[in-house]
Amino acid sequence: MEKKKIILTGDRPTGNLHIGHYFGSLQNRVKLQEEYEQYILIADVQALTDNFNNPDKVRKNVMQVAIDYLSCGIDPNKSHIFIQSMIPELAELTMYYSNLVTIARLERNPTIKTEIKQKKEVFGNDGKLVTYGFLGYPISQAADITAFNANVVPVGEDQEPLIEQTKEIVRKFNSLYGDVLVEPEIMLSKMSRVKGLDGNAKMGKSLGNAIYLCDSTEEIARKIMSALTDTTKIKKDDPASPDVCMVGYYHKLFSGKEQDIIFKECKAGHRGCVDCKKQLIKNVCEYLAPIQEKRRYYESNTKLVEDILLEGTKKAQKTASETMKKVKEAMKINYFE
Amino acid sequence: MEKKKIILTGDRPTGNLHIGHYFGSLQNRVKLQEEYEQYILIADVQALTDNFNNPDKVRKNVMQVAIDYLSCGIDPNKSHIFIQSMIPELAELTMYYSNLVTIARLERNPTIKTEIKQKKEVFGNDGKLVTYGFLGYPISQAADITAFNANVVPVGEDQEPLIEQTKEIVRKFNSLYGDVLVEPEIMLSKMSRVKGLDGNAKMGKSLGNAIYLCDSTEEIARKIMSALTDTTKIKKDDPASPDVCMVGYYHKLFSGKEQDIIFKECKAGHRGCVDCKKQLIKNVCEYLAPIQEKRRYYESNTKLVEDILLEGTKKAQKTASETMKKVKEAMKINYFE
Repeated sequence: MEKKKIILTGDRPTGNLHIGHYFGSLQNRVKLQEEYEQYILIADVQALTDNFNNPDKVRKNVMQVAIDYLSCGIDPNKSHIFIQSMIPELAELTMYYSNLVTIARLERNPTIKTEIKQKKEVFGNDGKLVTYGFLGYPISQAADITAFNANVVPVGEDQEPLIEQTKEIVRKFNSLYGDVLVEPEIMLSKMSRVKGLDGNAKMGKSLGNAIYLCDSTEEIARKIMSALTDTTKIKKDDPASPDVCMVGYYHKLFSGKEQDIIFKECKAGHRGCVDCKKQLIKNVCEYLAPIQEKRRYYESNTKLVEDILLEGTKKAQKTASETMKKVKEAMKINYFE
Repeated sequence: MEKKKIILTGDRPTGNLHIGHYFGSLQNRVKLQEEYEQYILIADVQALTDNFNNPDKVRKNVMQVAIDYLSCGIDPNKSHIFIQSMIPELAELTMYYSNLVTIARLERNPTIKTEIKQKKEVFGNDGKLVTYGFLGYPISQAADITAFNANVVPVGEDQEPLIEQTKEIVRKFNSLYGDVLVEPEIMLSKMSRVKGLDGNAKMGKSLGNAIYLCDSTEEIARKIMSALTDTTKIKKDDPASPDVCMVGYYHKLFSGKEQDIIFKECKAGHRGCVDCKKQLIKNVCEYLAPIQEKRRYYESNTKLVEDILLEGTKKAQKTASETMKKVKEAMKINYFE
């Protein structure tokens, strides 16, 4: 039997997962686990880099994200779901890779530059409060990727510079110490990002424009009723303004073949926005129903979720410790062997 | 019985130890181990931050430094000698502390600034090649100190800003997550630095002006014969120039009561430099003889040295893992407990 290629994915446990995650990556991961050996990282250490003053949030969401995974069809028999902080080797690899990257290189990383600008409340208006930990998270990511010998890392375009950084580290390490690390390939997401209820290009907790996989029918209804439809309200000088009705936009995701009729009726003026929203609410709820049913199951069986996380973490640690052994050997810090 | 206070000391394994280390710290550590529980760190991870392209050098010197320690009277029953890279918790703590320190703060650290200037061959003339790993070593040091709950850290004046950084991290951590870490006190070395054979204020391998504890009689003789005595040769415009004869300077360290006669004869012009040097060679060799005898013993019993290092590392890991447990608990990343 041919050995499966390895893929690494993951999320920062800073909130429940939403339909943006679902269509952007979770759905894909459910497919990928058939073809690849999939490691799924719950990146609590990375989440702490910009949530160090709110560890409760990170802690709570580790379990929530795990439940979201399982509810969406991530199969623990095919994917290893694990918790970053429980693998000390990831911190060790980060330390050693830290010598192979200059501060100047990290400061030039476009993803990091953008994120620092976005996180003014943590890092200040001029970025003067940027922490050592945050600036270095691309190195920590290189540790995550290489620890499991990942051949492939699926990312969105905005994350591409991070994987480029990993590739650089791998090449530098291998040229200095010998051919030990696997250089990953970037798998660029074909899915475009799911827009927020307000038309913002990004759906996110901090933007308050997301439909979560765990949202109740009432929450979904409330959110969709307030979704942006009336394009005349859009300020002309706002470059973030959408050029579509968000209700129509979500119908494309949730309403299958019905959408043909919906768009036809809308254009003909035979369909009111309120009815259209009600139909979307129904379709979204139906779409999410099987996910939410599984969610309820796992929420009332958290011991099972814990066991799955423990099992996944055990497997991940085994792989990481094998990589660590090779790395220490190559770096000649394998004492007493 | 009252619990002993804990002290942390250590060295970077980048070369054999010399008489500068002996009079500057080793001699003191032999005393300190009576009063304190002493952890002695062989800092291979830190050594790699500016020797990442020469791991052989670091590897070789771990054993050499351990042998130097034991030869000078560090007693493994009183001091725990351990290897930094063998304690993964130190890397983990470094990761978490990294979120509590800004890049700007590290770049302001006077010790780091000086060292970057000194290491032009690694970090470039303008410091543009400074690595993430090197800039962050004060954070890694905070991990070393706090992992073992060190109450006291003996340092020279030039290292004081590093311990100040540790103190800051401890205060920040404790205020954010609860009172977990022990804030260390600085024990400023009373010993002034031992000058080099050339009169340089610093004795060091890179300066080629050191007498090593492992130097043979021939090497010691050769080095002392070439030591600076003739102060008329000193360039007036060289601010590093010494104002004393280096042979006289070392007589003060090695010649006990004899020095009174030596200085008297020298001042009266009754003593030639060659005879004076020969006497110093004899005295240095006699002084180092018991150390070198022990050295030969440990060099032909490396298995014993390895066992001592393993034992010390085991103890250090136990302590570090207890600290790690408390840190994870405080940061709420103690899953499944």
